[in-house]
Amino acid sequence: MKNTTSATFKIGIVGYGNLGRGVELAINQNSDLELVAIFTRRNPAAIDTKAQVISIDNISDYIGKIDVMVLCGGSSSDLPEQVIEISKMFHTVDSFDTHAKIPAYYDAVNACATANNTLSLISTGWDPGLFSMARLIGLSILPEGQEYTFWGEGLSQGHSDAIRRVAGVKNGVQYTIPIEEAVARVRAGENPILTTAEKHKRVCFVVAEEGANLIEIEQTIKTMPNYFADYQTTVNFISEEELNAKHSKMPHGGIVMRSGTTGQGTKQRIEFSLNLESNPEFTASVLVAFTRAIAKLSKEGQTGARTVFDIPLGYLSAKSPEELRATLL
Amino acid sequence: MKNTTSATFKIGIVGYGNLGRGVELAINQNSDLELVAIFTRRNPAAIDTKAQVISIDNISDYIGKIDVMVLCGGSSSDLPEQVIEISKMFHTVDSFDTHAKIPAYYDAVNACATANNTLSLISTGWDPGLFSMARLIGLSILPEGQEYTFWGEGLSQGHSDAIRRVAGVKNGVQYTIPIEEAVARVRAGENPILTTAEKHKRVCFVVAEEGANLIEIEQTIKTMPNYFADYQTTVNFISEEELNAKHSKMPHGGIVMRSGTTGQGTKQRIEFSLNLESNPEFTASVLVAFTRAIAKLSKEGQTGARTVFDIPLGYLSAKSPEELRATLL
Repeated sequence: MKNTTSATFKIGIVGYGNLGRGVELAINQNSDLELVAIFTRRNPAAIDTKAQVISIDNISDYIGKIDVMVLCGGSSSDLPEQVIEISKMFHTVDSFDTHAKIPAYYDAVNACATANNTLSLISTGWDPGLFSMARLIGLSILPEGQEYTFWGEGLSQGHSDAIRRVAGVKNGVQYTIPIEEAVARVRAGENPILTTAEKHKRVCFVVAEEGANLIEIEQTIKTMPNYFADYQTTVNFISEEELNAKHSKMPHGGIVMRSGTTGQGTKQRIEFSLNLESNPEFTASVLVAFTRAIAKLSKEGQTGARTVFDIPLGYLSAKSPEELRATLL
Repeated sequence: MKNTTSATFKIGIVGYGNLGRGVELAINQNSDLELVAIFTRRNPAAIDTKAQVISIDNISDYIGKIDVMVLCGGSSSDLPEQVIEISKMFHTVDSFDTHAKIPAYYDAVNACATANNTLSLISTGWDPGLFSMARLIGLSILPEGQEYTFWGEGLSQGHSDAIRRVAGVKNGVQYTIPIEEAVARVRAGENPILTTAEKHKRVCFVVAEEGANLIEIEQTIKTMPNYFADYQTTVNFISEEELNAKHSKMPHGGIVMRSGTTGQGTKQRIEFSLNLESNPEFTASVLVAFTRAIAKLSKEGQTGARTVFDIPLGYLSAKSPEELRATLL
């Protein structure tokens, strides 16, 4: 459906892994956004897409031809490097998700974007992103209360990697699952103090090498410090066929709850939850909505770094403010 | 807890019904906000509060002494009149909730506030308000999808009033309750088409006059057009004592769901829900968080009318942007 009242914004994608592919799919769902090109460090000819693929070395050729670049690299090394280079030339949106390093990342991006008259939204997606917004709303409206974040049911990449490093393990995945009793206690307004391990259990599906000692593998996983030792952990051994058939998707989700009181102990609860069949496709869809916001705000002359806390929600939509007031308020 | 980094904003309340009392309670939970005075059309001496109470006739004496006025009158006649008078003198926040009239209300307030260099946030609370924000986020992130709003379990003032107008009814209340099967079908990703009556049932608790015909009362309620005829309605007759003991609170809540797809039919769901022991106290807490935002934005020189779609979320919080990035993102 073409929204004739809104301009078409020209978008670029930097990096074409799961997230980059998700951004391409999401742009196709929004008729006011146009994918101009995907930029890659790999050989462009090797990338399987109908979109135009360009070597990242030639990205500066696109100055003036692209409104916003969506950076789809990883947080550990790609983004901190790329955002500084690319925000010199383009407005950017990224999903930098190393929570502890966000303040330093913000400062670096803000200095670069401000100096170069560009606008950069950092750390969007669902956590950080939508969950951060839910935490902020909860805290601001119910200052006397307690906040709870539950993750899952969802595939954890880090924990799956940890399983696959165990001797005798051929392949494996790990699901993080909220403990129902903990969710129920919060919903009942008990305001319990809960550690991450008291809120979540870990369920592993493991393909063992032929002849491997299954008891030893299970013990090694369950006693692994940081990853599993503190948690209620279940290990299921399955065949490689079953793993491929049933566990190749990347579902995720979670719940942010604010349980608080107003007046004389009146209980009030706010919940925000996500139930996602594909974590990267949903994260990409969030990035794309915020890309529209950055395209609009940059055209108003804004520069510097931003987070989801700085963006008026109306900017996420292709609809005009008049239309939003008439139809969604 | 005093937040020493934030200024104290001076707040006034106009109207002292359930909502006004809730705003007073909410201001007391926020140390960066100070209640200067409550303005009333009634005799100030008759108002039971520790706060200063002033006749609304003297409101202009407070120009320069109050940062934001929170308008707590009703939407049918109080607000349309008051907002135009008061936004000539003060920045305002209100909860105007007649959805169909919001565009005209916005235009009138915008003209007045712009001409008088004041800033006015209209139509905040939870619906319109937080639910509108959830609808906007859902639509913007999952453009291919379906939105569902369920109200309740909660006391409906309009339907309770309708019951009380039935001949032979001494007193009564009505609860709107989401139909569980409908909620479950949406959560299962069926994307059903559902009318309001297919999403909600209505449960009434009625105190009959002595000697009244209960069968007739039940029939009159269940066949009442618009209010009950289309709905699965249950009528329970109870004593006045039971009504007072068990049904004198004003609970409410609801769920906004966006059920959509990304990529090749990947199902994704966003849910926002509220579970409220007191509808007016919670609505008041939302108004107060947005009052802080309007206080801050007005100090930046903004004027005119705004809705929740125009307010960057960070402005809702007493914390600084640096603190928000470090602790909530």
